Amino acid sequence: MSIITLTTDFGPGSPYVAAMKGVILSIHPAATIVDVSHDIPPQDIRRGALVLEEVTPWFPAGTIHVAVVDPGVGTDRAIVYARIGEQHYVAPDNGLLSRLAAGTPPAKIIRLANAEYWLPPVSSTFHGRDIMAPVAARLAAGLDPDLLGPPLERLTTLEWPEARRTSSRIDGAVIEIDSFGNLVTNITGEMLSGRPTDHRLCVVCNIYETWGVYRAYANQPNGTLIALIGSTGRLELAIVGDNAARRLGIGVGQPVTLAWEW
Amino acid sequence: MSIITLTTDFGPGSPYVAAMKGVILSIHPAATIVDVSHDIPPQDIRRGALVLEEVTPWFPAGTIHVAVVDPGVGTDRAIVYARIGEQHYVAPDNGLLSRLAAGTPPAKIIRLANAEYWLPPVSSTFHGRDIMAPVAARLAAGLDPDLLGPPLERLTTLEWPEARRTSSRIDGAVIEIDSFGNLVTNITGEMLSGRPTDHRLCVVCNIYETWGVYRAYANQPNGTLIALIGSTGRLELAIVGDNAARRLGIGVGQPVTLAWEW
Amino acid sequence: MSIITLTTDFGPGSPYVAAMKGVILSIHPAATIVDVSHDIPPQDIRRGALVLEEVTPWFPAGTIHVAVVDPGVGTDRAIVYARIGEQHYVAPDNGLLSRLAAGTPPAKIIRLANAEYWLPPVSSTFHGRDIMAPVAARLAAGLDPDLLGPPLERLTTLEWPEARRTSSRIDGAVIEIDSFGNLVTNITGEMLSGRPTDHRLCVVCNIYETWGVYRAYANQPNGTLIALIGSTGRLELAIVGDNAARRLGIGVGQPVTLAWEW
Repeated sequence: MSIITLTTDFGPGSPYVAAMKGVILSIHPAATIVDVSHDIPPQDIRRGALVLEEVTPWFPAGTIHVAVVDPGVGTDRAIVYARIGEQHYVAPDNGLLSRLAAGTPPAKIIRLANAEYWLPPVSSTFHGRDIMAPVAARLAAGLDPDLLGPPLERLTTLEWPEARRTSSRIDGAVIEIDSFGNLVTNITGEMLSGRPTDHRLCVVCNIYETWGVYRAYANQPNGTLIALIGSTGRLELAIVGDNAARRLGIGVGQPVTLAWEW
Repeated sequence: MSIITLTTDFGPGSPYVAAMKGVILSIHPAATIVDVSHDIPPQDIRRGALVLEEVTPWFPAGTIHVAVVDPGVGTDRAIVYARIGEQHYVAPDNGLLSRLAAGTPPAKIIRLANAEYWLPPVSSTFHGRDIMAPVAARLAAGLDPDLLGPPLERLTTLEWPEARRTSSRIDGAVIEIDSFGNLVTNITGEMLSGRPTDHRLCVVCNIYETWGVYRAYANQPNGTLIALIGSTGRLELAIVGDNAARRLGIGVGQPVTLAWEW
Repeated sequence: MSIITLTTDFGPGSPYVAAMKGVILSIHPAATIVDVSHDIPPQDIRRGALVLEEVTPWFPAGTIHVAVVDPGVGTDRAIVYARIGEQHYVAPDNGLLSRLAAGTPPAKIIRLANAEYWLPPVSSTFHGRDIMAPVAARLAAGLDPDLLGPPLERLTTLEWPEARRTSSRIDGAVIEIDSFGNLVTNITGEMLSGRPTDHRLCVVCNIYETWGVYRAYANQPNGTLIALIGSTGRLELAIVGDNAARRLGIGVGQPVTLAWEW
């Protein structure tokens, strides 16, 4: 357990991230620190939860992931350690881990309570630096998570819109815009199994529609709106060689419907 | 001495930063390189000095911090090595280190003069790559700083506005906008000692005012303007769940006044 | 071969970059991963090729550079391994390596074909994560590149505008805007040899002109348009203390002419 990743809403280039790294390296100089993203929109717990779900399972078993999207810092919201699958997490208990936990029930949840593993004096505005970074560094150095505090039954969960499948259609929504402006939905590739994915399938988003699901962005000419199954296994809408979100003026929450002509 | 941090105004994602890392790793492959920030506004020495003051003391003793905000590159401005507290610095002598040195007088200052430790041919436009990176790498590999050049008496200092405290008020100013848009002032928490910090304290900034100093951002509803002591120990103004700098149109230099009603 | 660099158009803060790092560390936990830039404009192969040319030669011999600017992902475009000088590259064969290869003919080119070194299941939209990252990790761990697939004769090349030198003038163009807004041209310092670089040399760009080539940005007062040989050895136009590209409204492709008065 010697790799530590960081996911925050501090903004790329924020010196707050570096303060956390300094604290980690002061406690465990051999830690390998990897940035997952610091580009989570401020206080956007849902976006943070999606990024953690998409990225952290790619890391080696035993990696410790610290996530700080924490609008409630300094209030009585809990900070937790959780083991989910082969990965370890340290985060405020505000729903940040709820996508991951919905997929794989946590094997262990601990509420951070034992201040002996924190970095005094603990501020009331930056628990990422004063509590989460030192706890992650100590875990990476071999600390038993059971010493961090009492066990918790369950994590705080956020509600997520679920795509619904009926015999003739699937109703979902855009849940994320990626850095290319592709519109990522909550409709998974698995939901399409047994259905045609060729020109008989119509994908509708706002006033736009496209037919069929493609394999690659470059399968159509630049400027074409296409649907495809992206690298996270979800259906996405893209404009070849362009930024679909900006071009179509579409954001998170927009309904997306798949319908079939037989 | 094997951790090297980098602070520059090159912009996040700048390939110039990577060239410096390549030079460091060519000389000392075992170095651990950490980005402090590359988001300092171009040529903004004051902002660089504040970031160095806030972040670098969190690193382990013996860390080498390289700072490149260097509008005078290629002129006769000096480049210096300085030991301040337990940390080592390599930077142009243009005031970048003056916040740190004001807090803790440097134990040693050396003017970089011995070109044998640089990377030839030295350009006249990128001393970060050609002088500071190789010097930092050699220090991390164990080079005695005394070999770098002659000692210097003192560092170049920049004037900073000081907050002033009288019996009935404190007059300060916004000195920094953080990545959340919070307005960080030059009024420290210590200046408030012995004064009430509840509803009897009025904080005025431009046409806006707020009463009392809070402990956490989430102590008030979203949209509320509050004052609190931030994670750097300074009084800051924030709008809960929003970007105060953008919302109020306030930037660095804006006066902030604290007054008491008894 | 244990340092791996990453250059992509994923955007700073993109979680896609972190997924690649997770894959690399899962295969080769001891790898040192360095970001070159993730700020290449989406699908801008030319800008990617320039950044690779400017930055990667600064890394230690044996470094493995992974470059993902890959609009053709999922089509039949090849992915290649190439050894160029002392450096190793893994990239789509779309011209990304053509600046480097024009300077130093590759000593070896392999077309990635042996799927046993990839990470199944391979998506059709993210070969950076599923093919290039695992191949780079295995190379860093000692894999013989010859096992990756069959040799290739040559890399795909892109045409680049060449500066032309006559007896009385040099005609070039802006090929890159750096993060300070300096206008970097395809005119090298070497092309000026034997010519005066003082006030007898006139540099013209759009409606703007400046005389002489300076040594350092700070040689003239703030606000002055100057020409100088930048840190990549190319002539660039800069406004002292300001952003020339924004101030003058000039972008990549703008002709730049040097003429002499004798």
